[in-house]
Amino acid sequence: MLNPDQKFMRAALKQARHALAKKEVPIGAVIVKDGKVIARGYNQREMKQDASSHAEMTAIKKACKKLGSWRLIGCQLYVTLEPCAMCAGAIVLARIERVIFGAFDQKAGACGTVMNILDQPKLNHHPTITSGILEEECSAMLSGFFQDLRTAEKNKKKSTYLV
Amino acid sequence: MLNPDQKFMRAALKQARHALAKKEVPIGAVIVKDGKVIARGYNQREMKQDASSHAEMTAIKKACKKLGSWRLIGCQLYVTLEPCAMCAGAIVLARIERVIFGAFDQKAGACGTVMNILDQPKLNHHPTITSGILEEECSAMLSGFFQDLRTAEKNKKKSTYLV
Repeated sequence: MLNPDQKFMRAALKQARHALAKKEVPIGAVIVKDGKVIARGYNQREMKQDASSHAEMTAIKKACKKLGSWRLIGCQLYVTLEPCAMCAGAIVLARIERVIFGAFDQKAGACGTVMNILDQPKLNHHPTITSGILEEECSAMLSGFFQDLRTAEKNKKKSTYLV
Repeated sequence: MLNPDQKFMRAALKQARHALAKKEVPIGAVIVKDGKVIARGYNQREMKQDASSHAEMTAIKKACKKLGSWRLIGCQLYVTLEPCAMCAGAIVLARIERVIFGAFDQKAGACGTVMNILDQPKLNHHPTITSGILEEECSAMLSGFFQDLRTAEKNKKKSTYLV
């Protein structure tokens, strides 16, 4: 039986699978208010050729539209990978109450790993953080994607040698 | 005679005036490549009720669309106020070469004042920063806006007392 955090992280993982189906780095996010998913997003950087098309940004934009306000008071954001600086910054600006993420990002995580923007004392809002929810599942989807990418590139090189 | 940085900051100030005309906090940005403005943006947070509608984000999205790529190689971003964490994060993600800003943001500046995301050693891209270009002009536009806002609120309170 899944607890609420695991349940909503599953919903974020479903979004990550949409990214995977489109050959994007599989990262997904949902925003929850009063126990209901009110917005969804997945990484679309390559498809849209837009550096800012991260899962969280899409979900935040959709939630603002849905609520008719740039202040996402009482909202929780679930995302399969620790948010980067851009997304963590947007989370603070939108006054999101709580951030729940799955896998840690050792290269660019801005919610505790490389830096912590949500806990920056000078900023005027400090969302709480819960980390490592369904971490293995979130991590495995990402590492599987990069493994497949490496294999595909290796095979491509091999076939080039044979020409 | 204006030098190139001052010339492009004037273009960013023109964008800030568009925000001002719509009663938004007056912040404007332009993106320059090969000596030409390729994208423009101004703060539209209230109008769009979208926490992420900062001048820089709009300009970055437009530049990505214009160049057909999420990598804004060889691009400079001019903005009237020091970028926040979200915008600084997006600048790094988009591989912008150089950031030039006017006024310093003592509350949320993420290019040296409150934090420095562009100089974060673990991130994979480090844009150079030039600060304080037409600082007085950029600052005056912002402080004038907030002064007018305070006066309007004071007058509103006064007229409420008289009812």
